[in-house]
Parts: sequence; C-alpha cells; structure tokens
Amino acid sequence: MASLKIPATIPLPEEDSEQLYKAFKEWGTNEGMIISILAHRNAAQRSFIRAVYAANYNKDLLKELDRELSGDFERAVMLWTLDPTERDAYLANESTKMFTKNIWVLVEIACTRPSLEFFKAKQAYHARYKTSLEEDVAYHTSGDVQKLLVPLVSTFRYDGNADEVNVKLARSEAKTLHKKITEKAYTDEDLIRILTTRSKAQINATLNHFKDKFGSSINKFLKEDSNDDYVQLLKTAIKCLTYPEKYFEKVLRRAINKMGTDEWALTRVVTTRAEVDMERIKEEYLRRNSVPLDRAIAQDTSGDYKDMLLALLGHDHA
Amino acid sequence: MASLKIPATIPLPEEDSEQLYKAFKEWGTNEGMIISILAHRNAAQRSFIRAVYAANYNKDLLKELDRELSGDFERAVMLWTLDPTERDAYLANESTKMFTKNIWVLVEIACTRPSLEFFKAKQAYHARYKTSLEEDVAYHTSGDVQKLLVPLVSTFRYDGNADEVNVKLARSEAKTLHKKITEKAYTDEDLIRILTTRSKAQINATLNHFKDKFGSSINKFLKEDSNDDYVQLLKTAIKCLTYPEKYFEKVLRRAINKMGTDEWALTRVVTTRAEVDMERIKEEYLRRNSVPLDRAIAQDTSGDYKDMLLALLGHDHA
Repeated sequence: MASLKIPATIPLPEEDSEQLYKAFKEWGTNEGMIISILAHRNAAQRSFIRAVYAANYNKDLLKELDRELSGDFERAVMLWTLDPTERDAYLANESTKMFTKNIWVLVEIACTRPSLEFFKAKQAYHARYKTSLEEDVAYHTSGDVQKLLVPLVSTFRYDGNADEVNVKLARSEAKTLHKKITEKAYTDEDLIRILTTRSKAQINATLNHFKDKFGSSINKFLKEDSNDDYVQLLKTAIKCLTYPEKYFEKVLRRAINKMGTDEWALTRVVTTRAEVDMERIKEEYLRRNSVPLDRAIAQDTSGDYKDMLLALLGHDHA
Repeated sequence: MASLKIPATIPLPEEDSEQLYKAFKEWGTNEGMIISILAHRNAAQRSFIRAVYAANYNKDLLKELDRELSGDFERAVMLWTLDPTERDAYLANESTKMFTKNIWVLVEIACTRPSLEFFKAKQAYHARYKTSLEEDVAYHTSGDVQKLLVPLVSTFRYDGNADEVNVKLARSEAKTLHKKITEKAYTDEDLIRILTTRSKAQINATLNHFKDKFGSSINKFLKEDSNDDYVQLLKTAIKCLTYPEKYFEKVLRRAINKMGTDEWALTRVVTTRAEVDMERIKEEYLRRNSVPLDRAIAQDTSGDYKDMLLALLGHDHA
C-alpha cells in the first residue's frame, strides 16, 4: 500500500523532462515544479524521465538536482529520484562509512526488503562501489556486531509463505531461542543461525510458537537487556523481519519527537516506503501517536522539504 | 575453454526430441543415440530440447532418462542434461544431506562459480527445495566448519578484475593472514572475513603478496596441519578461489587413481566443467600425471558411462 499519488494522465517523459529543464533554468529554481513532477511519478516513470533527460539535454538529472537544490530538500529529492535498488545501495554504503551511528540502516535494508530486491541492491552496490556490501560490512565491524550483521546482509533468504512453514521445526527452534535467551547467550550460533537464515514466514511461525509457549514475545524477553547495543540490534532485526511497519513507525516517532527533528531518518523512511507500505505505516503511526503522520511531519518541517515529504505521503497538491 | 564438441549443423530440437523418443522406445534403449545427441549439445540447446520434448510428447525428458537408464551412466546423463544452475542446486542439496562426505562439493560450487551464476543456483535451490542453501548449510553444520562454510555459501562476492585491486589492502591483508596462520589461529574472524568476502581478484593479489613477502604460498604454510579436517577445508577453499583448474585436476586424479574409481566425483567434475574450463583441466592433468585425461578415464571406466564421459571430454564419436 503505497502512499504515492500519481495523476490519472501522466505527461510524456519528454514533457516532464522539459518542465524540469525549465524549472532549473528559472531564477532561483522552481522547486514547486520539481515536486509536482518527481513526487508524483513511480520508480519506472522516474527512471524513464532520467533516461530521456540525459538523451535530450545531455545532462544527468541527478547532477542537476545536486547542483540546484540543497539541504534536507535536496537529500529527499535525490533519494526519491534514485531507482529503489540504487537507493538502497547508496544508503547501505553510507552506513558502512559512518558505522556506529548508522548500523540500524543496514539491518533495516537487509531485513525489510524482499530477498530478490535486496539482492538487486547488492548488484547495484557492486556496480557503483566496485566492492561487495558483504566485504564492506565485514571490514568495518568486529566482535558480536559482526557475528550478527554479516550473515544478515549476506544470506539470500528463501521468501517462503505460510503454506511452506515447517511446524515441527518452528516448535523446536522456538525452544532453542528460548533456551539461549534465558541463558543470556545472545550471540549463540544457533540463535544467530535461525534469525539470519530462515525465511521470514518460518521465523514468524517460530516466534508465534515462542509467544504461545513461553507467554511473551521474544522482544519482551530481550527487553531487560535493551541497554546493550548488541541486544538492541538483535531486537531491531527481529522487528524488521516480522513487523516492518511497526519498526518504521517507531523510527518516524523518534525522528519527529526528538528535540530537533532527525531529518536524516525521516527522509530515509519516507523516500524508501512511499512506494511500498507507507499507508500501513501511517495507520500504525496514527494508532500509536493519536496524531496523523502527515500532521506531525507538517508541524516539524517547513518549506520545500515539508512539501516534498507531504507529496510523497499522498497529498495531491504539494 | 569448453571440451564439449557441437556439430557444425545442429538438428532442430524437434528432430533431437524425436530421435530421443525413438531411442527410449527401442528394445533395451539406444544408449548410443542418447549420447550422440545430448553429449553434443550446449546448455541452451539441451534446455530447448527439454521444452520441445515436454510439448510434443507431454513427458519430462529427465524422468524418461531416469526410467530408462541406470547406474553411473544415468547419473552422468542426468547431471549433464540439467541446466547448469539447476545442476548446482541439485549437487549442493545432495551435499547438505550427506554432509561429512560431501562438504567439499559445497566449497567447490561456492568458490569456483562466477558470483552471478552461483546466485542463480541459489535461486534454483529456492525454487526446487523451498528452502535456502544458506539455511540448509547452516542447519547441518556446527563449530569451525560452520564458521567458514556458511559465509562461503552466503556472500555475493564482487567479481572484480585485476585493474580494481586495492594494492595497499592486499599488502595489509597478506600480513594479517600470515600472522593468523603462524599463530595457528585458523578460525580467526579476520582470516575468515578476508577469504569469504573479498573478490577473487583481490584475494589473488593478497596471496601473491603473501608469497612474495613470506617466501611460500599460503597453502604451503597450511600444509603441516593438513590432517585437520578444517584446515583441509580452508586449503580447498583457497585453491578453488585461486586455481580452480588445479583443484579440479586433483579431484580427478584422486577419483581415478583410487582403488576402485570414485565415479561420484568423476561424473560431477566432467559434467560441471565440460562446458566451462575442461580444456584447461585436461592440460593440468596431462602436466601432473603424464597421461592424457581421456586415456586415464577410458582405462578406468567402461560401457555407456565411458562413452558418455569421453564424449563430454571432446571425442567426436562416442
């Protein structure tokens, strides 16, 4: 359930390109025009516009945006305009470089994308950075974090579905997880193996058995140790694998409720989810905060940046 | 340099299918006909024949082969007829099931295939077994072997080339490898990280620096501990990553020189390499054994099985 709104009649990419070209040419740049076009086109349409722009004006649209825009607005437009797999590659690479702050982004990308999409992001990573995501993550981490993060970004998970769940296995692995967690053996190889290699459907069944048998969710069991960075990471991975919309709601809540908005996280979540599950995230946000997400964002942001985010959230007129 | 020989004029897949259909119908099956067709068609052509056979006779060619043939000959024809990625998925799955004996096969597949081909084999694995290779390998291993094998089968390596090698990194990682190996810290996380995540080009540069700086190859350093199963595995991975044709020569040498041929290994290597680098492997075999590979195989095998292998090795007439 994407929040993105696309007009009933889409202009030709040639027309969109021409409008963008004119918007850059105007004295001071016509930001409204940029939003009204790019924030209302899906990934395939944006990619088409980029190709036509390059062919007709012999210029890279992304470089034009980079030159003409600035600040949070620039980041939002740039991230949005990128192809989703290129964008994931970009965000993941950025995270490996500024490691401690952004390790969550790697978990988020590895655990919330469907397997094939995540693989395509890894291909985009090869093409752009001439290294693999795996080697960059492994190189920049160590110890417990490495033990969990490297398999998370490496495994090509089976997508699976509810029909293919192995119930017996779910029961036995739920017991294994409970045993390890009550022993506080959070870096145990079986615990990491289960969470990093099983399909999401299988993990979901395992964690449902866990809850049925042991009375609380696995993350409740982990809660008391939640000051530990590694345990936080483990909880994040579990949440991303099982309830991505709740995970994203929390990231948004923290980004907005902070003293000083965390635009970095806000931009990332809005641009990466607008075409995927933003409507579900908005539902979760409203339920948890009793305020609609668009209103919360409108109160915390301003100018073109605000207009861009609201357009991606589904406002018709930026 | 494939050894496979394809006739200058290829019959239509309809004609091949008809000949195969007739070969199955004959009293006692016409094995010669099966070899003369399938062992002289490349992967795309075989795949086409399978599709046409299914369309025209409403039967799965692989099932027909399974019913009509038997023993080593059957395994050779079956493995050969499979699409290379399906074949790798099949061999890898077989290995996870009969683990201790066949762990080498997993290392071989993970380390000798180009990254994208190995990925496609993992996709074929999902489709056929409704699990991931990663979860099956992780589930069936433990301890040191798991530490090395799981990242080997998980990483989507950057292919890389000599121009993209980071020389400074190669120097520093050569030192790291030397330090860990002289300390006999064979399961050290940095050592495993380097071998399981770096591109083959980068690993090659690192091991060249290793040899230049420390006077012997890394596998020479590992030799004294080569009775250890884990160290054997490590040496196998290094050999597969850097000199696949030497690795395959050794597998063939051992398969043939044994008391009682190891048909299981012989069939695997011939069917998986005939379309890839068998000419290079034949060169290595001749250099190392002073006997041509085809002669050695002819002396050790017989009947249709022998004819099939020799056809794949490049003999015109089976």
